[in-house]
Amino acid sequence: MMNTTTQAATRHRRGPLPADQLEAVDAQWRAANYLTAGQIYLMDNPLLAVPLDAEHIKPRLLGHWGTSPGLNFIYAHMNRAIIAHDLNVMYVIGPGHGGPAMFANTWLEGSYSEIRPDVPRDGQGMRKLFQEFSFPGGVPSHVAPQVPGSIHEGGELGYSLAHAYGAVLDNPDLIALCVVGDGEAETGPLAASWHANKFLSAATDGAVLPVLHLNGYKIANPTVLSRITEEELESLLRGYGYSPIYVTGHEPEDMHQQMAAALDRAVMEIRDFQVLSRCEDPVLHRAFWPLIVLRTPKGWTGPVTVDGYQVEGTWRSHQVPIANARENPSHRAQLAQWLQSYRPEELFDENGAPNELVTRLIPSGRKRMGSNPHANGGTLLKPLALPDPGTFGVVTGQPGAVDASPTRVLGRYLRELLIRNADSRNFRLFGPDETESNKLGDVYDVTDKQWSATILPTDQHLARDGRVLEVLSEHLCQGWLEGYLLTGRHGLFSCYEAFAHIVDSMVNQHAKWLKISRRLPWRRPIASLNYLLTSHVWRQDHNGFSHQDPGFIDNIANKRAEVARIYLPPDANTLLSVAAHCLASRDYINVIVAGKNYTPVWLNPEQAALHCARGADIFEWASSDAGAVPDVVLACAGDVPTIEVLATVSILRKHLPQLRVRVVNVVDLFRLQPDSQHPHGMSDVDYDTLFTADRPVIFAFHGYPALIHRLTYRRAGHANLHVRGYLEEGTTTTPFDMLVLNKMDRFQLVIDVLERTPGLLERAEAQTLREEMLRMHERHHDWIRAHGEDLPEVRDWRWEGDQTR
Amino acid sequence: MMNTTTQAATRHRRGPLPADQLEAVDAQWRAANYLTAGQIYLMDNPLLAVPLDAEHIKPRLLGHWGTSPGLNFIYAHMNRAIIAHDLNVMYVIGPGHGGPAMFANTWLEGSYSEIRPDVPRDGQGMRKLFQEFSFPGGVPSHVAPQVPGSIHEGGELGYSLAHAYGAVLDNPDLIALCVVGDGEAETGPLAASWHANKFLSAATDGAVLPVLHLNGYKIANPTVLSRITEEELESLLRGYGYSPIYVTGHEPEDMHQQMAAALDRAVMEIRDFQVLSRCEDPVLHRAFWPLIVLRTPKGWTGPVTVDGYQVEGTWRSHQVPIANARENPSHRAQLAQWLQSYRPEELFDENGAPNELVTRLIPSGRKRMGSNPHANGGTLLKPLALPDPGTFGVVTGQPGAVDASPTRVLGRYLRELLIRNADSRNFRLFGPDETESNKLGDVYDVTDKQWSATILPTDQHLARDGRVLEVLSEHLCQGWLEGYLLTGRHGLFSCYEAFAHIVDSMVNQHAKWLKISRRLPWRRPIASLNYLLTSHVWRQDHNGFSHQDPGFIDNIANKRAEVARIYLPPDANTLLSVAAHCLASRDYINVIVAGKNYTPVWLNPEQAALHCARGADIFEWASSDAGAVPDVVLACAGDVPTIEVLATVSILRKHLPQLRVRVVNVVDLFRLQPDSQHPHGMSDVDYDTLFTADRPVIFAFHGYPALIHRLTYRRAGHANLHVRGYLEEGTTTTPFDMLVLNKMDRFQLVIDVLERTPGLLERAEAQTLREEMLRMHERHHDWIRAHGEDLPEVRDWRWEGDQTR
Repeated sequence: MMNTTTQAATRHRRGPLPADQLEAVDAQWRAANYLTAGQIYLMDNPLLAVPLDAEHIKPRLLGHWGTSPGLNFIYAHMNRAIIAHDLNVMYVIGPGHGGPAMFANTWLEGSYSEIRPDVPRDGQGMRKLFQEFSFPGGVPSHVAPQVPGSIHEGGELGYSLAHAYGAVLDNPDLIALCVVGDGEAETGPLAASWHANKFLSAATDGAVLPVLHLNGYKIANPTVLSRITEEELESLLRGYGYSPIYVTGHEPEDMHQQMAAALDRAVMEIRDFQVLSRCEDPVLHRAFWPLIVLRTPKGWTGPVTVDGYQVEGTWRSHQVPIANARENPSHRAQLAQWLQSYRPEELFDENGAPNELVTRLIPSGRKRMGSNPHANGGTLLKPLALPDPGTFGVVTGQPGAVDASPTRVLGRYLRELLIRNADSRNFRLFGPDETESNKLGDVYDVTDKQWSATILPTDQHLARDGRVLEVLSEHLCQGWLEGYLLTGRHGLFSCYEAFAHIVDSMVNQHAKWLKISRRLPWRRPIASLNYLLTSHVWRQDHNGFSHQDPGFIDNIANKRAEVARIYLPPDANTLLSVAAHCLASRDYINVIVAGKNYTPVWLNPEQAALHCARGADIFEWASSDAGAVPDVVLACAGDVPTIEVLATVSILRKHLPQLRVRVVNVVDLFRLQPDSQHPHGMSDVDYDTLFTADRPVIFAFHGYPALIHRLTYRRAGHANLHVRGYLEEGTTTTPFDMLVLNKMDRFQLVIDVLERTPGLLERAEAQTLREEMLRMHERHHDWIRAHGEDLPEVRDWRWEGDQTR
Repeated sequence: MMNTTTQAATRHRRGPLPADQLEAVDAQWRAANYLTAGQIYLMDNPLLAVPLDAEHIKPRLLGHWGTSPGLNFIYAHMNRAIIAHDLNVMYVIGPGHGGPAMFANTWLEGSYSEIRPDVPRDGQGMRKLFQEFSFPGGVPSHVAPQVPGSIHEGGELGYSLAHAYGAVLDNPDLIALCVVGDGEAETGPLAASWHANKFLSAATDGAVLPVLHLNGYKIANPTVLSRITEEELESLLRGYGYSPIYVTGHEPEDMHQQMAAALDRAVMEIRDFQVLSRCEDPVLHRAFWPLIVLRTPKGWTGPVTVDGYQVEGTWRSHQVPIANARENPSHRAQLAQWLQSYRPEELFDENGAPNELVTRLIPSGRKRMGSNPHANGGTLLKPLALPDPGTFGVVTGQPGAVDASPTRVLGRYLRELLIRNADSRNFRLFGPDETESNKLGDVYDVTDKQWSATILPTDQHLARDGRVLEVLSEHLCQGWLEGYLLTGRHGLFSCYEAFAHIVDSMVNQHAKWLKISRRLPWRRPIASLNYLLTSHVWRQDHNGFSHQDPGFIDNIANKRAEVARIYLPPDANTLLSVAAHCLASRDYINVIVAGKNYTPVWLNPEQAALHCARGADIFEWASSDAGAVPDVVLACAGDVPTIEVLATVSILRKHLPQLRVRVVNVVDLFRLQPDSQHPHGMSDVDYDTLFTADRPVIFAFHGYPALIHRLTYRRAGHANLHVRGYLEEGTTTTPFDMLVLNKMDRFQLVIDVLERTPGLLERAEAQTLREEMLRMHERHHDWIRAHGEDLPEVRDWRWEGDQTR
């Protein structure tokens, strides 16, 4: 084990702050602490101009105190360091309920009043700041879109460090100061994020400065990292690849000196390594980036004991330390004493504005962390130079004449996109080790996978600088991308469909962020969060049941209509069109589901563009209703269902040539919803025009059938709608067997048509066909068990274009 | 940094194996490697009795080779150690595509043929073993329920270590040998799981022996942990609290000696610490449990190069090293050479059974890892001694006369349950730091939170041994519980409703496990996975929007009907009844959603039991249809919606006393589905009896409205169904304002009744009431902005029982 003197040596009992700076930093900290406590308790009398009375205290005390004094301490010290070293810093807050600290500091520095002129930097503004915190119609207790300087929603813990790393990618000048709470540090996503330093490029990216804030407690428990030995903690952080600097204690003056020294040292180490990495003969090894371990009491500077129980330094300070200040006079007196302990009269002038002592070490303009433009990424957003998807499309003489791998075709498009935007360095691909296997590998012609750990001569496409980030953590991929988008750049996350569920809760939080930020005029639109879900449920031949789950889109369908978009392009050209559309869009969550296997190209590029613009349309070349009312509608959404529906049409044409069949393909899933429910929704008239109001509709769907029902239940024709989709039946098997297992194979769809088209089964040829289809099921079962592959007539099936007219 | 001699000292170049044991372990390993390669390639000629021909080779090569030789190596060595030290060991396999290794080893030891008599331990059996691997209708490539000895579905990476820790809880004699792949180690859940050692009790739990298998590569990339320095890795693992033992190399004899020494040392360290912890004067400090770092080439012993490319020791060995053995004669020759390199003639007798050399160091009976009873937990399952929920219920004179916190009442029940099952040590509570705040704290009267890190005098309810496990990682809570259940015990996971989404993908995999295992007669039923989702969407007063998401149940509704159950008890007594039912059930995923706030008790205990048995029923005491056909049905599911519907009824009674209203409450959500779709589903007749086929139904629902529509779209009355629920509108606000924001408040529900009951608005008093309701909305808005709390008439509202008849 390492020597504990290592730690002792990093502590600076006497530090770099001259008396005037010490006084100013302390004043800033006290002011922020005062404002934090004020937000939690007061609805009036913000400057304690008169003795504290019950009516000054909020009736419902919903704030949290415990984490904020530490956050305020870090903020004040970073302010000093920004000025001292002329830094460009944004502040990412991991700990939950850190909202009041950020409101306090951004109000002190003036950033808050600039976006909220109704909360000026004076006594009236302070009153409003206090009153609306954690109050109906007000602002939340966690950091959130409402907080200037934040790219982070602090309610669900675990994502701060990944966001911070995403933010500094391609921002070589930026430092993301990231406070990691010791509660949050127990989560899986945070635990995985420490290793993001194995991907960061010291030459072309900025730096993350993590501050692990060990205040020791969660809601009701100690934290793991505060209850292991110092040696273990040192080992762990070095094992994560950091060089820890310790700031430990509670006595303010000593702590100020320690913290100032720690930040000076961290900034120096960051700058030194960046200089070495950016010179003419750069070092290529990975840095041990600095990390600060700040060990303070929880609820530091708050009440030490309340009603005889220890509060400061325990979990009891997590929420509201003095519970009953409105009703209980002794509690109220203790609250007043606590507030006065910050000596507000030394901090605010007669108008309630922070005085020169407080603002002396606060930077100005865009150097203020609450006004850092990276934290309002939309203001920096530069549109991508998007190639025309049409020129990358596959030309097919007639529908289905040519096969292509949709994702491979997309890979060629992304290759060109990377070339065109190379200088802007504002687009990245993220994925869990699957870019190549998902057939997007053409991008490696023009870029590499960024990797700052060891590279061996046998490695391919690994480099210190590259546009692709791959790590086997969907959480980290998602967190990086979110951080990258929120700071004004663009990206795409390609993922196995089933494992997108791993980030369900992360996308929930991002959807909430978008919903709120869209309503804040000062937050400018950001690039959409784009998912490419591939290696999907129907083509997990070798991975089997564990990899078969199309339910991610069900979760997305619960999000607000203004942010959620789902696309199921049926072939390569439609995938291109959809992808280009998504990459140009703003403030959405776009989910694209597309396969990587070679499948027929149904539409030429210009047809594909038109089809995607319509979102859902009749495949006239596959329909036999000649514009009249059909006997039956065969609808499809998804690449595999589209093939199966067209194969169904082939069979029907051969055996029942008089049957009028219409084929409708849906690319943009929300077209199915009424226009009253979703901006992409169709009117009832349009819906009935496509699907009819009274004919049977057999719908072959990529995902769980219930999703189609929930989107269409208000439609006139819903009672006639029969949906086939994934029934949670799966195993390691052939592609066609998957369809048979889930009753969405062509033979079953023919049977569905026969059984659901009124009167059809009364015809002898229909009865014969039904028997033939049942025989085909038997033949399939026998064949697959004997040969381990699909029936030759299924494998070799092709759409016969000459039959179409 | 630590000295690298630390590592060198842990390597044993000369080791403990005498020549005969060395020979036997190597033979076992070669046999398993042969069987693994055979599974991937061969459909016939399993013993190479004739020259390898194209027809012997599978047409679709879907297996994966890379990880298996390492897994086989560990298996063979653990077999030796089990015999040498008389151990009780189960094998948890983290790496993906580890299936063939487990099939090979369990076939060699005879466990596989015992559960699959159609795959005997001879040449015919070997042929079948090979043929059905990763073959339609066969067995999967990942470890899965079909694999004897496995409690782990290996397809989605990240959960092995949490499962292993869950398995050894309360099994003091058990060692869970857990192989962690270096790919899997990059995931968040795995990264968090290392810290599970801060919770393990050396006195009363078993031990986990992790083997970190650094084979260096994922699908297409190197792994992070294989590309950091040895010093960093040592630091990291010590920082996680382990004492690493290194086994590094590729030369078999040397590696055998290293591995045997490493296992002997690990077993000794485990036993020594367990003895020290279990003696009369036990040590109380936490152990640095041993951990083995096995660094081998990926695809070890496989083809070194293929077509001029290096394969062994690179990512190219991940899947099928020789791609085209069926068509390409030189590939086929290389495959034959590879298979022959294991010298099968030295390993299998003329009948194809493994010979004495191979089986010499394989344990027998239940000592075989494929036959360890813990890995088929249903065989060990002892039912819980369940208290009668009725005796813990709250007696309420008439509906709503008494208030109770449902979870607090449940806490008292769980307290008694813990007492009754204390000796069995087979029930645990899991949660992310919320047991107390979710009001289940009465359990701390009789047990503690288990914690093996430092305990301070100020800590409450922390102890070395306790029935509650709390860590701020939903992943770890879920993984522990799954491991605990799969080894034959019982448990409950209480979680904030919104953050249950964090484990969406984990519950997906558990649902798949249950679906498969229910169809395997040798897998005995296990206790259900029980969730208590509390601190739910409607009562996140201080946490706000980030904590408001009721969508977990939407994901559960996509699971197979035979495993998914969702309950929304409206009060404390129904919660008790539902919880007791769930704790007695088997092989389900039960989701219970219930609030922690004080809310009215509507039903006496015996009424609650009857109501829950019915799952959905008329609240006759709240209805005014007197058994006749009502004018309107007010339906509700969830505690908050039930209150709101009853408040709506109060208003309607007062203002429109002639209106015949029926109140239907749904506890068991799947009652709404047709009986053809779910075993709990109602027949159409029963549904129409409750809800009518033609009257308007206003349904107030706890979650997203779409879920009710997808469950009921087949019902005759669906067109008349109007669902109110969560619309993704939220913020930090009061409980009633949340309802107003989402249009599910009583005033809105009254308006819904007025607008949707045919003819009603033609009556003057209805028009007056509608205006009054709109005024109440205005009054609410004004009041909340002025006072920050809800309208007094809403806050103080109570159901007036004397009005009910």
